[in-house]
Amino acid sequence: MTEAVTPQPAEQYVVGVDYGTLSGRAVVVRVSDGAELGAAVHEYAHAVVTDRVPVDGGAPLPPEWALQVPDDYRDVLRHAVPEAVAAAGVDPTDVVGIATDFTACTVLPTAADGTPLCELPEWTDRPHAWVKLWRHHAAQAQADRINALAAERGEAWLPRYGGLISSEWEFAKALQVLEEDPEVYAATDRWVEAADWIVWQLCGSYVRNACTAGYKGIRQDGAYPTHDFLAALNPDFASFVDDKLDQPIGELGSAAGTLTARAAEWTGLPEGIAVAVGNVDAHVTAPAAQATAPGQMVAIMGTSTCHVMSSDVLRDVPGMCGVVEGGIIEGLYGYEAGQSGVGDIFGWFTRTALPADYAAEAQRRDMSAHELLTEKAAAQAVGEHGLLALDWHSGNRSVLVDHELSGMIVGQTLATRAEDTYRALLEATAFGTRVILEAFRDSGVPVTELVIAGGLVKNPLLMQVYADVTRMPLSVIGSSQGPALGSAIHAAVAAGAYPDVASAAARMGRVERAAFVPDEARATAYDPLFEEYVRLHDHFGRGGSDVMKRLKALRRNAIAGNRQLASAQSTTSQEVSAGGEAA
Amino acid sequence: MTEAVTPQPAEQYVVGVDYGTLSGRAVVVRVSDGAELGAAVHEYAHAVVTDRVPVDGGAPLPPEWALQVPDDYRDVLRHAVPEAVAAAGVDPTDVVGIATDFTACTVLPTAADGTPLCELPEWTDRPHAWVKLWRHHAAQAQADRINALAAERGEAWLPRYGGLISSEWEFAKALQVLEEDPEVYAATDRWVEAADWIVWQLCGSYVRNACTAGYKGIRQDGAYPTHDFLAALNPDFASFVDDKLDQPIGELGSAAGTLTARAAEWTGLPEGIAVAVGNVDAHVTAPAAQATAPGQMVAIMGTSTCHVMSSDVLRDVPGMCGVVEGGIIEGLYGYEAGQSGVGDIFGWFTRTALPADYAAEAQRRDMSAHELLTEKAAAQAVGEHGLLALDWHSGNRSVLVDHELSGMIVGQTLATRAEDTYRALLEATAFGTRVILEAFRDSGVPVTELVIAGGLVKNPLLMQVYADVTRMPLSVIGSSQGPALGSAIHAAVAAGAYPDVASAAARMGRVERAAFVPDEARATAYDPLFEEYVRLHDHFGRGGSDVMKRLKALRRNAIAGNRQLASAQSTTSQEVSAGGEAA
Repeated sequence: MTEAVTPQPAEQYVVGVDYGTLSGRAVVVRVSDGAELGAAVHEYAHAVVTDRVPVDGGAPLPPEWALQVPDDYRDVLRHAVPEAVAAAGVDPTDVVGIATDFTACTVLPTAADGTPLCELPEWTDRPHAWVKLWRHHAAQAQADRINALAAERGEAWLPRYGGLISSEWEFAKALQVLEEDPEVYAATDRWVEAADWIVWQLCGSYVRNACTAGYKGIRQDGAYPTHDFLAALNPDFASFVDDKLDQPIGELGSAAGTLTARAAEWTGLPEGIAVAVGNVDAHVTAPAAQATAPGQMVAIMGTSTCHVMSSDVLRDVPGMCGVVEGGIIEGLYGYEAGQSGVGDIFGWFTRTALPADYAAEAQRRDMSAHELLTEKAAAQAVGEHGLLALDWHSGNRSVLVDHELSGMIVGQTLATRAEDTYRALLEATAFGTRVILEAFRDSGVPVTELVIAGGLVKNPLLMQVYADVTRMPLSVIGSSQGPALGSAIHAAVAAGAYPDVASAAARMGRVERAAFVPDEARATAYDPLFEEYVRLHDHFGRGGSDVMKRLKALRRNAIAGNRQLASAQSTTSQEVSAGGEAA
Repeated sequence: MTEAVTPQPAEQYVVGVDYGTLSGRAVVVRVSDGAELGAAVHEYAHAVVTDRVPVDGGAPLPPEWALQVPDDYRDVLRHAVPEAVAAAGVDPTDVVGIATDFTACTVLPTAADGTPLCELPEWTDRPHAWVKLWRHHAAQAQADRINALAAERGEAWLPRYGGLISSEWEFAKALQVLEEDPEVYAATDRWVEAADWIVWQLCGSYVRNACTAGYKGIRQDGAYPTHDFLAALNPDFASFVDDKLDQPIGELGSAAGTLTARAAEWTGLPEGIAVAVGNVDAHVTAPAAQATAPGQMVAIMGTSTCHVMSSDVLRDVPGMCGVVEGGIIEGLYGYEAGQSGVGDIFGWFTRTALPADYAAEAQRRDMSAHELLTEKAAAQAVGEHGLLALDWHSGNRSVLVDHELSGMIVGQTLATRAEDTYRALLEATAFGTRVILEAFRDSGVPVTELVIAGGLVKNPLLMQVYADVTRMPLSVIGSSQGPALGSAIHAAVAAGAYPDVASAAARMGRVERAAFVPDEARATAYDPLFEEYVRLHDHFGRGGSDVMKRLKALRRNAIAGNRQLASAQSTTSQEVSAGGEAA
């Protein structure tokens, strides 16, 4: 409510920049009310580099590698920011701050001044000199050793990560550099999260944000893994923290510095405005959805789902991705959990199992496959399709923490239709969410509200299934660019427009409360199905049957053997042609 | 090899008629060598009657009913037989015998002279006066009582049927007539297998064939279920055997009589030629494939698979459909087993899960969906797709004998493709066959050869998978109309052209031995996958988890509840519209 008698001060604006996997998005937001006035997206010229080192005659990359190019990130500042300001129609001089969020753990080696090693001519042709994207999965061997050693030594920090340090995180990736290219490792002055590197580029000073330092850098209770621990991993890794990692911590929402003349030139924004400390795309979404209080869990639902929630209690929750003090909101414990496959499972199904007549109907009616299947599935009563699925097509990230698990479905008959399977897959992910919610509750970390963000909020059947399965009203974020809005909120706090993130979020964030409410009859009908889900979950996930792991092992052997056979066939093709199974 | 010096006697011919579910097929066969000289098919005018009694203003039929019209069977004699003779270009006077095989248990009530009750004006509008097709499934309640009582009383015949009397068989269907329409039951002089009724029509005398009397009529060691047993089911059923069922038995291959003048007029064949006793489509296929010796198991693979095998030992095999003395070959014990879903599972998959781009590719290349998926799946090594399925989409008929089981698949990832799932389904049915083979062996009934008949022999990948999974060479029947050829063999024996079915089969049957031989490397690779199959089989099929049954129960409740909801919605549509899940 505006107060008519008070003269309005000139409006102030902030810029939030969300760095995703393939592009960066800048949004210009009004400080007073969070109105999103203009946005622009800039795609990374090099996208994700998985083939060769991106220089002339660059070396081929091994499997599981995923690199990026630092200057692509600067290009977002050069293009998307000024375009967003232009689109918003605001005077750049009224912009008072800028903040960024990033994928994580995306990490790179730099010189002491922040120059990426890959931008130095002597290192540019080395694969390990480049940015390792979050989804670079080639450090699994290092992660396995970190986990085994931490479990053996009973490291106190291990339960803070649900018992598992990911191969995606800072230590595994750094250890891979050391062991595969010790020269690059030796030349690395700083091992920097991209979330912090881009801030360094903006303000000229390196401040390590509390979020990634905790979730990805194993910083707990103010300390990192010890010299002893690191030495046991590899003697040459012993001083990694002291030499390359440790750095003053910036709390989320505080200012890392002010915009440099160079960054002002890139962005068209005024030199000297506030630059917030870095942050992570999922975590920054919480204030955008006004979910800053203990117990408000935000589920960012896309290809996968990331759950973030603050709490005033510190507990070990089985299988969580991590708990970090100040990891989401300064002064609270930030919890993160996740489901490794959600939207990508639905996408896989429509891509590989949508019958031709359905595809034709969707085309005729100008609908997406998802819309058509949702329409057909929506009419069913709970349990009508007779199916139950496990949503582990990409393994299980939370509670079980086992990448060797796989998907399954039971209850198929000759009457099973595509929409039945589709609905069963939607429901499986909802059951997976309920397992996580119950793990938090059972661990003494209550969840009082479920707030949905991310692309999947567009599917009303999915939302209703989640409300019914979890028996919780669903709130829905009121912005389609939640991370960028969340960054803008942090920019406003860093600029001093609000005293803290929670009060900024209350004015600038947007959420529709109880957008979907559970139907008691459907919720009751889901209870026995959830019980069945938990039974299958425990049978296949907790050692009742290890068939999923054995199938994966047999598959790996078969592929390796088939490669051998294929090369054998090129010399002796005679033997194989008899049986009808020849390639 | 012909002997040039001996003058050739005039060639003799026989007619075999195979009565299927939707049509009858007549084949004219040369007695000397089994050459199939001409064939004709006649479709039943009324096909399968599931809607209403097939008279003017006929009453609607309840769910699960399936009736047929007896005169449709006579039409096959009137049309297909003379057309086949004409197509063969033989002189009808050189035809020396005719034999028939039928679906079973297909059964009807008749007057004492064999007239179907449904052809008598006073009964024609009564549903229970008509032929009950094998797939009439409305007598499940009666079958359940038969099984419970037999188990309770420890009836000696129950293990001869793997512990389960089917709702499709003679006693359950007759008891349904008694309890739902006692007047029709009282008017029934004879309760006749259609396999015997058609022979009665041909030769004017009612001879009950040893095969259906045993497999479908619970005739064991020369006796039927006792008066006491039947009285305990229903006092009015006590004298069912004496009053309506018992009849002299004809061994397979013997003559039931000779062709009547009336039947000669229908068929154009000479009056007085031999008419063989009736037989069943699956069982009659064994001699057509020269599988008459102990241990030669014939798998007739189509939408489902029926396994028939003779043996010189009598044993209880868990879950077999039945063992009957002389049930396939006179003087040997005939064993029957089955898989309730095989080709129909593959058909279901291509119908409901073939992606549009695959459908387009199949059309462009003028291939069937099965051919395309087979081609794509054939190149894989064993285990490469990482999947394992249970083939219980229509329940499990053999070994477990449980219709409440359902299909499942495990091992799915985002990389799983349609051909992967298709191949996993092929393999699942092969594993199911191996379970049956091992059940026979473990029970002391050795299987020495596996002979494949039926439509699925056309898929070479499927055949090779069966050879590899079972580690047995596969023989393949040499005729595409096995049942009709098998009937013709029985006609030749009934006509005295051969001393017995085995010797006739040796001359007239056709089989390609070892058409597919196991590859040792693939067979070895399948062993651990089969072990996993057995583990899942036992977990879901033997009480480790009853999730399949509970899902079916929840599905039934949901459908019943949804019907209620639908009618409630028509009056109060308001409540449902909120959640996005409204119909």
